[in-house]
Amino acid sequence: MSFTDYIFTEYNKRTAALAQSDNPYARGVAWVDGEFAPLHDARIPILDQGFLHSDLTYDVPAVWDGRFFRLDDHLDRFEASIAKLRMRNPLSRKDMRAKLIEMVAMSGIRDAYVQMILTRGLQFIRQSAPEDCKNCCYLMVMPYVWVMGEELQRTGGHAIVTRNVRRIPAGAIDPTIKNLQWGDFTRGLLEARDRGAMYPMLTDGDGNITEGSGFNVVFVKDQHLFTARKGVLEGVTRKTVLEISDRLGFAWTLDDVPVELAYTCDECFFVTTAGGVMPVTRIDGNPVGNGEAGTVTKALWKGYWDTHYDPELSFAIEYRRPR
Amino acid sequence: MSFTDYIFTEYNKRTAALAQSDNPYARGVAWVDGEFAPLHDARIPILDQGFLHSDLTYDVPAVWDGRFFRLDDHLDRFEASIAKLRMRNPLSRKDMRAKLIEMVAMSGIRDAYVQMILTRGLQFIRQSAPEDCKNCCYLMVMPYVWVMGEELQRTGGHAIVTRNVRRIPAGAIDPTIKNLQWGDFTRGLLEARDRGAMYPMLTDGDGNITEGSGFNVVFVKDQHLFTARKGVLEGVTRKTVLEISDRLGFAWTLDDVPVELAYTCDECFFVTTAGGVMPVTRIDGNPVGNGEAGTVTKALWKGYWDTHYDPELSFAIEYRRPR
Repeated sequence: MSFTDYIFTEYNKRTAALAQSDNPYARGVAWVDGEFAPLHDARIPILDQGFLHSDLTYDVPAVWDGRFFRLDDHLDRFEASIAKLRMRNPLSRKDMRAKLIEMVAMSGIRDAYVQMILTRGLQFIRQSAPEDCKNCCYLMVMPYVWVMGEELQRTGGHAIVTRNVRRIPAGAIDPTIKNLQWGDFTRGLLEARDRGAMYPMLTDGDGNITEGSGFNVVFVKDQHLFTARKGVLEGVTRKTVLEISDRLGFAWTLDDVPVELAYTCDECFFVTTAGGVMPVTRIDGNPVGNGEAGTVTKALWKGYWDTHYDPELSFAIEYRRPR
Repeated sequence: MSFTDYIFTEYNKRTAALAQSDNPYARGVAWVDGEFAPLHDARIPILDQGFLHSDLTYDVPAVWDGRFFRLDDHLDRFEASIAKLRMRNPLSRKDMRAKLIEMVAMSGIRDAYVQMILTRGLQFIRQSAPEDCKNCCYLMVMPYVWVMGEELQRTGGHAIVTRNVRRIPAGAIDPTIKNLQWGDFTRGLLEARDRGAMYPMLTDGDGNITEGSGFNVVFVKDQHLFTARKGVLEGVTRKTVLEISDRLGFAWTLDDVPVELAYTCDECFFVTTAGGVMPVTRIDGNPVGNGEAGTVTKALWKGYWDTHYDPELSFAIEYRRPR
């Protein structure tokens, strides 16, 4: 019996049911150019600047056990990112919301990874004023994606502090605008693999830990949480975890996080919508604390999944077909 | 009569002829999943990691007046980029070469911008070893793209040294691997526009000029060329220009380029395959030298276009249809 059974026993049943579905969208659905398509058949123009210059922003809310979680927080951040890039969403917020809910409902997927992408569109920003570019919105709903799966959550993941790559500085690309320019993360993932681990944590080049490939990093020392304030995405999952920390009485600090903490902390975990709270039990080959998911991590892990049923933060989707 | 007439008189005739073409590929042709398509109709899978994480590399050779220019230099760099990203091109070099020539020939385009892109493919590098990923190659041939068009080449472009964005450092993303993660360049393009200019030059954050949005930067002071050694793409056009400088007797230095030089140089020009040698006559609103394209710039400009007929560096394409 593992602490992870608390969610995975039921989740695995739901996943098994989904695998039996004859719904053509059960493996995922995309919305492109105003039409729905099975995700694996969906295509975008090769000339889209989202491909040709990664000129885009995106966001990822999730659905858990048939409930959309913090959708409005993700829409808020998505809108803020869009404004910073001087883009305009052809869909209103109301239409975005309705479309995403419709897609989840039509797919029958009860635990979903939901991705909304807004690209600059077909016009290159050098040749066109931003206000003249017709931006393109793409939506995707697919079965929940795990940055760290059940087995690994049980034992905890192995991470490294990367040596041959640093995080892109905010002065080059603003990490608070959620983006898909993953060159530094991809390099980090390859380095992690080379060093027998799976998860890279990148520094800012000045001795501080920033974030990893798609997740915020949290260290725990003497039941106190430490996580980077600058040079990172302002994660919705992290925000949720800090709120839960307040409730549970764990203090936290949002500031520069010296690399040293990776080697002196009692506990470490990663946070992302695609996986929740993910325990890290080895860093650079050495055990973190006693080498198992720590008590603070486990308390926040449980609190995180419980909060998915909080009506203040989530709402139930009305599915079209019976399960 | 402008110095630019030397190429544009004939080029404009060729472009006018192309505009009359009834060839379905005259506006461009793409090769995707083993099939040719008119460029504006071509689509790629939304799940391609080249889109979803900009996990790709690319290169751009050009065709000028029916001749492929330095194709092998571009293929060399493309192969080096692919190796650094631990990808494998499903096309052999011989097949790449043949396919690109075939596409130009079938399009009837005599002045072409040719783009080859290799993406990680449909598998995300976190879940898959690089050797297990089936990488995807996309090819495009389209009419020549001008980073600086004829009119602007005549008068020279207006550039800025960006203040609110720096170049992504090599320690985060290696700029010698040609990539489409243009977040810093896009920011620079927007800043340039805000400041009444068109071309951003980005610093390395340590007081040196690196490169701009798709071009290398060259300053001329006392007939001596200065251009950045580190933190930039190793441009084929720049290489060509330095070779011509050797022939014409202009010395050059490849090293850190202090920002100061942007304000004290006699001449400045940008270099890229999509435009050749592009004179810059205003920086941050002030004239460079006497505010016109300089003598060294014009000599290299002419030398650059002449070299496109050098049989050592270019070869004629056998077009299928009469012009």
